[in-house]
Amino acid sequence: MNDLSKPRKLHKSSSFHFKSLGSPRMPRKSLLKPSLATAIVILALYLLFSFFFSNPPNLSSHTTSDVSKLAVKSGPPIQSPTKIFLYNLPRKFTYGVIESYLTARNSPTTDLKYPGNQHSAEWYLFSDLITPERVNSPVVRVFYPEDADLFYVPFFSSLSLVVNPPGKAPGAYSDERMQEELMEWLDEQVYWKRNFGWDHVFICQDPNALYKVIDRVKNGVLLVSDFGRLNRDQASLVKDVILPYSHRINPFKGEVGVDGRKSLLFFMGNRYRKEGGKVRDTLFQILEKEPDVIIKHGTQSRESRRMATQGMHSSKFCLHPAGDTPSACRLFDAIVSLCIPVIVSDYIELPFEDVIDYTKISIFVDTASAVQPGYLASMLRTIRTERILEYQKELKEVKRYFEYEDKNGTVNEIWRQVTSKLPLIRLMINRDKRLVQRELPNLDCSCLCSSQNSSRSIL
Amino acid sequence: MNDLSKPRKLHKSSSFHFKSLGSPRMPRKSLLKPSLATAIVILALYLLFSFFFSNPPNLSSHTTSDVSKLAVKSGPPIQSPTKIFLYNLPRKFTYGVIESYLTARNSPTTDLKYPGNQHSAEWYLFSDLITPERVNSPVVRVFYPEDADLFYVPFFSSLSLVVNPPGKAPGAYSDERMQEELMEWLDEQVYWKRNFGWDHVFICQDPNALYKVIDRVKNGVLLVSDFGRLNRDQASLVKDVILPYSHRINPFKGEVGVDGRKSLLFFMGNRYRKEGGKVRDTLFQILEKEPDVIIKHGTQSRESRRMATQGMHSSKFCLHPAGDTPSACRLFDAIVSLCIPVIVSDYIELPFEDVIDYTKISIFVDTASAVQPGYLASMLRTIRTERILEYQKELKEVKRYFEYEDKNGTVNEIWRQVTSKLPLIRLMINRDKRLVQRELPNLDCSCLCSSQNSSRSIL
Repeated sequence: MNDLSKPRKLHKSSSFHFKSLGSPRMPRKSLLKPSLATAIVILALYLLFSFFFSNPPNLSSHTTSDVSKLAVKSGPPIQSPTKIFLYNLPRKFTYGVIESYLTARNSPTTDLKYPGNQHSAEWYLFSDLITPERVNSPVVRVFYPEDADLFYVPFFSSLSLVVNPPGKAPGAYSDERMQEELMEWLDEQVYWKRNFGWDHVFICQDPNALYKVIDRVKNGVLLVSDFGRLNRDQASLVKDVILPYSHRINPFKGEVGVDGRKSLLFFMGNRYRKEGGKVRDTLFQILEKEPDVIIKHGTQSRESRRMATQGMHSSKFCLHPAGDTPSACRLFDAIVSLCIPVIVSDYIELPFEDVIDYTKISIFVDTASAVQPGYLASMLRTIRTERILEYQKELKEVKRYFEYEDKNGTVNEIWRQVTSKLPLIRLMINRDKRLVQRELPNLDCSCLCSSQNSSRSIL
Repeated sequence: MNDLSKPRKLHKSSSFHFKSLGSPRMPRKSLLKPSLATAIVILALYLLFSFFFSNPPNLSSHTTSDVSKLAVKSGPPIQSPTKIFLYNLPRKFTYGVIESYLTARNSPTTDLKYPGNQHSAEWYLFSDLITPERVNSPVVRVFYPEDADLFYVPFFSSLSLVVNPPGKAPGAYSDERMQEELMEWLDEQVYWKRNFGWDHVFICQDPNALYKVIDRVKNGVLLVSDFGRLNRDQASLVKDVILPYSHRINPFKGEVGVDGRKSLLFFMGNRYRKEGGKVRDTLFQILEKEPDVIIKHGTQSRESRRMATQGMHSSKFCLHPAGDTPSACRLFDAIVSLCIPVIVSDYIELPFEDVIDYTKISIFVDTASAVQPGYLASMLRTIRTERILEYQKELKEVKRYFEYEDKNGTVNEIWRQVTSKLPLIRLMINRDKRLVQRELPNLDCSCLCSSQNSSRSIL
């Protein structure tokens, strides 16, 4: 991350103005008539206050040496925040989903608190937009759709998936029907049709959320956890935004250091997974033999969360193997635990990768190397303490990106990423309007292709 | 284009502070001791001036009704300008190309003026970056590569292509050798290798510029006229920037109106072209018969430019058929002539399409319809005068985007577009650093696919 990611104050010289106020010599005895004295003093104080409060001094934001390297010393351009319109969806798509969830569990519905889960970004984004006093956000909420750059569809699509408790007969609630009803509602909205959907933002963080209608909403900006179950023409790094899961264990409050971190590597989670997650069983077999590695089979429960917290807070490294899809909330648990993630998930996509260099906070190991007996543990043992402390310091730096409740955290970063899609969204809207009938051998796609089509393990 | 494209002033309330200065009642006779009076008045004036000059009042930028619709009234976030490092290439790649061009034509090399041609963006961008006092640019030039977000490679690659005059025996100059030597030079630069080339900007406006080394520079942001000769893994709307050609005829200085525009449709250019340009001959055959259409075969010359100017300034519509590649400078000649472009070029890509809705300034006709005898002329005749005036007004609005010499014109718009690529550039850099060896059935590409894969003619 370089300093471009931090907004700079425009009026860096305000501290100078402020200091200059110290100089006027005051007479020992006032010779002013009260009325004039009062008027002038009030005027001076008023100007001082106005100036000071609208231009807080910010000595650190723009150092002299920094400025002197620039050919142009005029202020940076000011970017208007992106204007977002929050659809006033029928209640059943938002609070109604929470009610259905609670009802299906025979819980009281008096307090409509979103049930804690790793896909709660949908709740945080919605809550953010309905907050009356929002500050320092890259997006402003507008109340007239005509003013909007983007339209946010706040359906709780991930919670909707799990309204019916597993293992019980399905109740009256149907997620599939909800998805269809959402589309019926959208199809009646003039702004939904106006720009082919390009300027609409959908949240579908659970890899199965919105699966039934995904082809109908795919032009929009999709807020997802990964692309594991999405086709290349449905979602991409170019169009969409990768969200972090909410971490489920408590952040580590201590300082960087290895004294309290006696075990080398920690993992606790389901041993058996589909797809890329099949590697887990092999990793268990290899790592169970290592004396300084803690690797445990466990499923979601309060007790296992407690054990995971303890393990992640007392280990140097935390294993992050692929699950059913390439991503998992464990990665974010590790980050807030300052436990260096060891990522064994070849197809993972990571949140905020435009500003976070993950090689500084984690270790990537390709699956083929990771399943070589002895490789992983002995490689990690070669990493010296100084290097571990460096990783931990970087983890501390980026922690806020993974804190949904931080005012300067995940929510604003998601909006910042959505905002950065705007030029391409506008381009696609204008271009789609004027394209003519023509012969195309393939889909009409614009792509960005990695230069690392065949790559190496990076340490 | 909506108001987001215009930067807004932060401190819109400054006019209020200024007005409040009028109110303090001044006594008829001063009772102040000179020293104190002076100190306070100087202080007040100083604050007033400081405040006023660092916050010029800007009543028009943010109206009250505008603000009242926003949920958040805090100022917009400030975006730092993108920092660009201009490579100090050996002289032979810049001024040296001009010298070689002049020498090959036995012209004096005392005045190193860039020879006028439609690919002169390379000159304008270079000139802009070497200007000491640049203002209101979306990019600032930095002089330490370590500070840079992007690196600009100012090789005059389009001029280099035409150094040897056509039809003459090639001289000592070889464009291919120059391309190779550029790569040799780049390969010695630490910053070229550091980020896989993603943060480098190359200009290759002529469709054949840099053709020999394009695969080696394709990770960079390419500034091109179209994608006619580039593969999908070499260039795309996502990664690259479409430049307008410099217009070659004089802008129309008059007002909107049809009185001076007696002919319906005008075209002057080469009748015979390759690829999509084959349609030209058919269009000639059809349109030559129409009484109010002027269609002439002509090649580049001072005389034909004079005739084209006259034709474009006195016609309502200007035909823009594909040439050897989908784009051509004629489109931009038409725009600055307020002659409504009629675009018959199915695969054209257009500059600044994120901010310009070309359906408001031009008419798109698919080739299959355009070659139906009678279709084009009779369709254009149905367009009423009011509609023509609307098109002309919009053309006037967007003219500045196509004026390379306008301080608020093409050059800044190109930099703005380059800047908008930065989040994706940073994402690709960070992602490529951490990708591991894995099996991929295809290239590892992220794509944005048009929703108009089979589309209709739009009027």
